[in-house]
Amino acid sequence: MSRHFKTIGLIGKFANQELGEHLEKIRDYLQAQKRIVVLDAGTAEVLPIDGLEVKSRDQIGEICDLVIVIGGDGTMLNTARSLAQYGVPLVGINMGHLGFLTDIPWEGMEECLDGILSGHFRMEERILLDSSIIREGAQISHNIAFNDVVVHKWEEARMLEFETTIDGQFVNSQRSDGLIISTPTGSTAYALSGGGPIMHPSLEAITLVPICPHTLSQRPLAIPGNSVVEIAISESGHGSAQVTCDGQINMGVLPGDKIRIKRFEKTIKLLHPNVYNYYEILRLKLHWGEKL
Amino acid sequence: MSRHFKTIGLIGKFANQELGEHLEKIRDYLQAQKRIVVLDAGTAEVLPIDGLEVKSRDQIGEICDLVIVIGGDGTMLNTARSLAQYGVPLVGINMGHLGFLTDIPWEGMEECLDGILSGHFRMEERILLDSSIIREGAQISHNIAFNDVVVHKWEEARMLEFETTIDGQFVNSQRSDGLIISTPTGSTAYALSGGGPIMHPSLEAITLVPICPHTLSQRPLAIPGNSVVEIAISESGHGSAQVTCDGQINMGVLPGDKIRIKRFEKTIKLLHPNVYNYYEILRLKLHWGEKL
Amino acid sequence: MSRHFKTIGLIGKFANQELGEHLEKIRDYLQAQKRIVVLDAGTAEVLPIDGLEVKSRDQIGEICDLVIVIGGDGTMLNTARSLAQYGVPLVGINMGHLGFLTDIPWEGMEECLDGILSGHFRMEERILLDSSIIREGAQISHNIAFNDVVVHKWEEARMLEFETTIDGQFVNSQRSDGLIISTPTGSTAYALSGGGPIMHPSLEAITLVPICPHTLSQRPLAIPGNSVVEIAISESGHGSAQVTCDGQINMGVLPGDKIRIKRFEKTIKLLHPNVYNYYEILRLKLHWGEKL
Amino acid sequence: MSRHFKTIGLIGKFANQELGEHLEKIRDYLQAQKRIVVLDAGTAEVLPIDGLEVKSRDQIGEICDLVIVIGGDGTMLNTARSLAQYGVPLVGINMGHLGFLTDIPWEGMEECLDGILSGHFRMEERILLDSSIIREGAQISHNIAFNDVVVHKWEEARMLEFETTIDGQFVNSQRSDGLIISTPTGSTAYALSGGGPIMHPSLEAITLVPICPHTLSQRPLAIPGNSVVEIAISESGHGSAQVTCDGQINMGVLPGDKIRIKRFEKTIKLLHPNVYNYYEILRLKLHWGEKL
Repeated sequence: MSRHFKTIGLIGKFANQELGEHLEKIRDYLQAQKRIVVLDAGTAEVLPIDGLEVKSRDQIGEICDLVIVIGGDGTMLNTARSLAQYGVPLVGINMGHLGFLTDIPWEGMEECLDGILSGHFRMEERILLDSSIIREGAQISHNIAFNDVVVHKWEEARMLEFETTIDGQFVNSQRSDGLIISTPTGSTAYALSGGGPIMHPSLEAITLVPICPHTLSQRPLAIPGNSVVEIAISESGHGSAQVTCDGQINMGVLPGDKIRIKRFEKTIKLLHPNVYNYYEILRLKLHWGEKL
Repeated sequence: MSRHFKTIGLIGKFANQELGEHLEKIRDYLQAQKRIVVLDAGTAEVLPIDGLEVKSRDQIGEICDLVIVIGGDGTMLNTARSLAQYGVPLVGINMGHLGFLTDIPWEGMEECLDGILSGHFRMEERILLDSSIIREGAQISHNIAFNDVVVHKWEEARMLEFETTIDGQFVNSQRSDGLIISTPTGSTAYALSGGGPIMHPSLEAITLVPICPHTLSQRPLAIPGNSVVEIAISESGHGSAQVTCDGQINMGVLPGDKIRIKRFEKTIKLLHPNVYNYYEILRLKLHWGEKL
Repeated sequence: MSRHFKTIGLIGKFANQELGEHLEKIRDYLQAQKRIVVLDAGTAEVLPIDGLEVKSRDQIGEICDLVIVIGGDGTMLNTARSLAQYGVPLVGINMGHLGFLTDIPWEGMEECLDGILSGHFRMEERILLDSSIIREGAQISHNIAFNDVVVHKWEEARMLEFETTIDGQFVNSQRSDGLIISTPTGSTAYALSGGGPIMHPSLEAITLVPICPHTLSQRPLAIPGNSVVEIAISESGHGSAQVTCDGQINMGVLPGDKIRIKRFEKTIKLLHPNVYNYYEILRLKLHWGEKL
Repeated sequence: MSRHFKTIGLIGKFANQELGEHLEKIRDYLQAQKRIVVLDAGTAEVLPIDGLEVKSRDQIGEICDLVIVIGGDGTMLNTARSLAQYGVPLVGINMGHLGFLTDIPWEGMEECLDGILSGHFRMEERILLDSSIIREGAQISHNIAFNDVVVHKWEEARMLEFETTIDGQFVNSQRSDGLIISTPTGSTAYALSGGGPIMHPSLEAITLVPICPHTLSQRPLAIPGNSVVEIAISESGHGSAQVTCDGQINMGVLPGDKIRIKRFEKTIKLLHPNVYNYYEILRLKLHWGEKL
């Protein structure tokens, strides 16, 4: 038995009976492997599982050596943000629909976890984004994102006007429906719908994808991961805008506000079984061609 | 006077009288600065300049501490490839049309060179690509590219069929007009015409951009700079294909051939004046919006 | 003097002093030509012009033989919708910025109007769209659009889910930020930002352009102008949506609502001077290349 | 028995044994229906079928009341071009892979033909293109296309330079890999790979889709079906170009040549079973979403 991963947290978001049964099976499997298993408090609320100590998300970050997420990519995004500062490695198990982040199929769960628990895995480090809203010089709100920070018009049919600056250098002014600032992880999510490129998750890069820009010459732009992006919402613009992290957290912005986005200081550690192949997941998710 | 850049090479490709006069002015300027100035043999053939020793391209790579290129981006591409293995820093001066690589305007030439010669400059390292054709297991041709390696159909109206592998992992099979494999430098060239993203030149990334792909789900893909890309041309495909480096060098390929593309082992060192701003060049070249 | 265009209406929307002076010059010009000139009531409110009878928009539609719009394309869109049922021909004069719809430059105004008033003009007929919201079988709101009807998510970061039917035939279900249903006139407006094609204004066609669709296989689709498009908002979808006509009129929709869009029964008649050249306007507005 | 379609031609291109058996079954079926069945000479060469009179393609056009094409869309394209001037209606039967033009599945062949032969069908008229090359004022070659006329660089890595004129009005100059001039039928073929819109086949429109244009402001453009398009290849351009019709017929062009493209004077009449649904074929071929 490996010395790694003594205390393991379980997270699964939805009040779904099948998910409950899956959590019980993982609990049994892990306890048979002599691991200490704790259950996420949010999960326990909707899916009470017997025989497990319940811990808050922060406690899980502090005490766990590994966290197993069961469900879809949305659950993994939420987990990643909440545990980002703790550095605990994450494993994602899907329930039937292969996810970009939840890459272990339920059917192969035991075999994959056998490998990971015995130290045979591939660890991937992925960047997150740190976004803050600055109003009249003061930071008024702050959040992190694993996929993307989206600045978009809100309750307003007309286009948003804003200026973009990178590392203090003016890039351009733009009228559009908004701007997607994406990690490589997010490049296969909303940024792809907006016409952005697929970015391999190991790239330390941030992608800026304009949403329905007014001029024809705007293009997706990938910049170094250590860049600081600032979006200044036009003073004279009509109507309001909003900043959304991972499609899950919203922050309101007003004309004249600035949104500052930079890499979060820590990374997410995703563990995959040794057979993990990013290009295979891409091919399966995007329905690309098979071998000739 | 700075100790740097004692011996300086001059390269300017076209048989253009104005270019000849410019080369003479730069010669005078550099000699007044007590530099040893040598002239590229290819340049000397079309533009004989008095009072300069003429050296082959390889000799220039070996003896020069700095090479100044006058002309357009095409001349810089050619220079970069020919001097890639020598590591000599390059400076690009344009003759009226701002280039992505020839960023110093003729009007500001003296001021910019004053700065650079006295040690005030920004140095950028950019990757190149190394492409080789493998036929029946043996490498039959080999070239380097600073912008892009393009695999494309040739003398054939029908689509090309090929399989792409990255680091030995199968990515997809594709029917299309071809595939652009681009450095960040090349991302504002042909790859942009093909729908690829703009990649900041400091990113260590390679971009794959399909040309008119048959299926709708293909997208530009950016991968780590140390990846090895292999394109296997279908055995059963009709007609022939070609590999083109920087739009300047062609290599023929046949059904069954493989094209292997990876990062060249050395980088290009581009020197810019301290005021250099990549985003400003992007904005000017792509006609992006000015400040609101 | 031509017998045509005896009674002419003037419309100019903004409270702008220069616009007021322009209206006075056109008034003087037209009265010198022995025309009866009436002023739009909405214009009169913000720009009272002496010596003109003021008429409501509907009265203008009923009594005028020609309506001259001064300003930008937004003013023309508003005018076109309000006068659509009356069939009165429209002429658009811009105030410095060439518009797709306001194609006569102020400097050439007299010469162009001389031609038009003496019967030398090109008349273009353009389609409008008629959109209605159907809730539980009953039409609850209704509007017309000259550019586009946009179904889009509203106060909601997540994607919209809907099914599209054309002429009673199921087309597809879609998750996206919304759908632009555009006339050829609107093809150079928001639909172009969304990636749609440019449609020559004389085409009797309706274009459907998905906004940031979730799947990669969606593409802009042009269908015959007499098609009936129905968008059914998913019952189970989260959050609300909105329908916007020409970016100027909003109608709220709820899960389960249907939006029915078809060609409006009348057309807009735009009059242009004989030198009018649609492709020249395209070229100037989109900054296309000049002659080689 | 319907009086229609007394003499019926059979066309199936490939030397494929299964196709031969299919042709025999259709022969038997049609002869049992008391029809006169004739076999295309090109088909007879590769698939001799007993008991059928063999006729040249032109004879088939002259004597047949209906032509049945078995195979893929490529066979239908070839047939349509060769019979375009005769106006004979066409029916397309596929052999396993649904085609845009060969929409009748082999399994449902008898039922569909029962309907069509008894007069129950939907007839669609589709436009073709007529393309000619003009050198020094004289037409030097001429062809028709059902999908598209493609002007593209040939044996040349650099971009093609050309000017486009529509109805004698200058549209733009362009540097690109070429230009696709497409019918609505061709809008789901190469034009779609190039980023063009899907055009409903009943639209009388021609679509111009630039291939990898050098500038970012080029967009697909749809114009009225009765437009005359002229492409003038730059005099000073390097290298040669080619014009390809339907990906099947090539014509060489030189610097200074003009390519004139307009609608062919006749249409193709495609017969479909009454259940034919264009949007269903689109959805199946492009893998669009099913009902929610």
